[in-house]
Amino acid sequence: MNKRVQRLREKLKENNLDAVMVSSPENRRYLSGFTGSAGYLLVSHDSSFIATDFRYFEQVKRQCPDFVLVEIWGAMAGWLPEALSKLSAQRIGFEASDVTYNLYKQLTELVSGMEGNRRPQLLPSTELVEALRVVKDSEELEAITKAINIADAAFQEVVSRLKPGMTEKAIAWDLEKLMREKGADGTSFDTIVAGGPNGALPHHHPSDRPIQQGEPIVIDMGAKYNGYCSDMTRTIILGKADDTFKRVYDTVLAAQLTAIATVQPGMTGEQADKLARTVIEQAGYGDKFGHGLGHGVGLQIHEAPRVSRNAKDVLEEGMPFTIEPGIYLPEWGGVRIEDVVILEGGKTRVISSAPKIGA
Amino acid sequence: MNKRVQRLREKLKENNLDAVMVSSPENRRYLSGFTGSAGYLLVSHDSSFIATDFRYFEQVKRQCPDFVLVEIWGAMAGWLPEALSKLSAQRIGFEASDVTYNLYKQLTELVSGMEGNRRPQLLPSTELVEALRVVKDSEELEAITKAINIADAAFQEVVSRLKPGMTEKAIAWDLEKLMREKGADGTSFDTIVAGGPNGALPHHHPSDRPIQQGEPIVIDMGAKYNGYCSDMTRTIILGKADDTFKRVYDTVLAAQLTAIATVQPGMTGEQADKLARTVIEQAGYGDKFGHGLGHGVGLQIHEAPRVSRNAKDVLEEGMPFTIEPGIYLPEWGGVRIEDVVILEGGKTRVISSAPKIGA
Repeated sequence: MNKRVQRLREKLKENNLDAVMVSSPENRRYLSGFTGSAGYLLVSHDSSFIATDFRYFEQVKRQCPDFVLVEIWGAMAGWLPEALSKLSAQRIGFEASDVTYNLYKQLTELVSGMEGNRRPQLLPSTELVEALRVVKDSEELEAITKAINIADAAFQEVVSRLKPGMTEKAIAWDLEKLMREKGADGTSFDTIVAGGPNGALPHHHPSDRPIQQGEPIVIDMGAKYNGYCSDMTRTIILGKADDTFKRVYDTVLAAQLTAIATVQPGMTGEQADKLARTVIEQAGYGDKFGHGLGHGVGLQIHEAPRVSRNAKDVLEEGMPFTIEPGIYLPEWGGVRIEDVVILEGGKTRVISSAPKIGA
Repeated sequence: MNKRVQRLREKLKENNLDAVMVSSPENRRYLSGFTGSAGYLLVSHDSSFIATDFRYFEQVKRQCPDFVLVEIWGAMAGWLPEALSKLSAQRIGFEASDVTYNLYKQLTELVSGMEGNRRPQLLPSTELVEALRVVKDSEELEAITKAINIADAAFQEVVSRLKPGMTEKAIAWDLEKLMREKGADGTSFDTIVAGGPNGALPHHHPSDRPIQQGEPIVIDMGAKYNGYCSDMTRTIILGKADDTFKRVYDTVLAAQLTAIATVQPGMTGEQADKLARTVIEQAGYGDKFGHGLGHGVGLQIHEAPRVSRNAKDVLEEGMPFTIEPGIYLPEWGGVRIEDVVILEGGKTRVISSAPKIGA
């Protein structure tokens, strides 16, 4: 943890800040180890405070040995100005993508009420901690790999016993149950099982509709392990595939394999997206692939880097992200194939091992 | 749904607004029925728009018949100014407790770029939709009751087979599994099972520690049904209770029953909290009850009304909220007892039915 706070302090310097107030739950956990639902970190060049309420006093003592506890009792006015004074920081950043308009107003009011010589400046800062989180360390990669292995194993077990007539809901629950029983903390998002026409909704919620022979069935699932997310999609078919399925499936698979084979460190998210998109466009399905190629995964299921049209994020060694092209045909259904890859030694390494039809 | 939008329009009038941009996921769902993870509502006196991206186009058509879909492709600049023009609204509220500082900056920039005669004013608004949500309609109460019944049944089944040596984690998972199998969409929060000293952490995360004879075991759990949350806590003991347990348990139970018996519509959250707190203070444990007495439940596990020290919210007929006093003794453990009650006919009605020891 210490090392992460150290890296944050370097970031502070780069950004000409004396301190930062961290409010986002994932950034809070990343830096301090605290897994509770409420609290703020205040980190300056020589202090690390964690402010939280009664429910978490004991937990902070166990989880955050590197942070000094500031007890929150009641309103912010009761602890924030004093804590800020103790920081002795002039320029204090706040997380502008997390702090709400109302909280911002409250913060500026409290600060403007502080004595002149102790009154700091509040400055919006964006992606300070996120910039640290985007490249994963070995402990993080281990957790992501474990989450992926759990989801893979659950998928293979459930798919081997799928039969027409099972409902989407029952299949989704079977997958979630198995992931937990194989050691997951929980799911990283609500499992998607979408049979036939439902597959045309990329984020379909499992229904009581039974799956049927000969239709595409999209399964998108993720486990959480030690707070870290996995994310995988497979599209399967029971019985005989029709020509539409074969054409659509092969196009999506070709797009995915193209991206896996050719994405390199140094590319932007936009360039990576284009590699797969071109394959789909050339097959005449360009307007049926309406979402981005992928996204980073970590403590959040969607995090940096963005891998989609207009994404300027540069892909670097040590970044795990998804590659998940899809084609969606209203009435008929959809096909999506997704793996998490990591950039290593100049190329992608696919972490998941669940088989793809025809691959 | 229509009725809710109608009530929102009355609220707009009261607040001298021509329209509102709704960004909070629960408010969005409450008004439109949309269960997706991303999107905005724009509601004026004569228009209702829902803006969302490709992943949800088909879903919106199914779920939101009263709303006109605005397709989001790429950045906000691509759709927001045009949609705002179509609203023909001068004074447009945004949800100041949900919109982040960065989003606010982006919104004001986009609006300032609109043509003079079409340029609206953006105004922070707070608890516009929340004020509608605090009193529940019959459909909502039915969903909450169903969620509570599911959690009750799971609790009673699991407790009947508890044995020393089971781990907190295994018990929590058993509860979560049963809730799902009894029809829950999922849990309304991570189930808490805290044996012995762990119970001193009000929000303890289940560990591999086995539960033991003669120690307090706090179980705090909730189911979700049709999006609505339940919330219940029981503290149990296997084998013989010691004197500390008896004294602490009886105090917490007395505090809870006092509040249940005496809370009335018209009281503030603060007054309700005080009823239970006084009982605990008189028993000498005042400083060991560090959290509020309760909170509203609905689409969110914590929502209005606040029922705690300094809470000015007025409790009214038709509001469901928790009553959950607790006493926490570091090293020893904790006792918390919680039910959801609803105000009806001038008094509370307890919805849950899981038994309390000695009650």
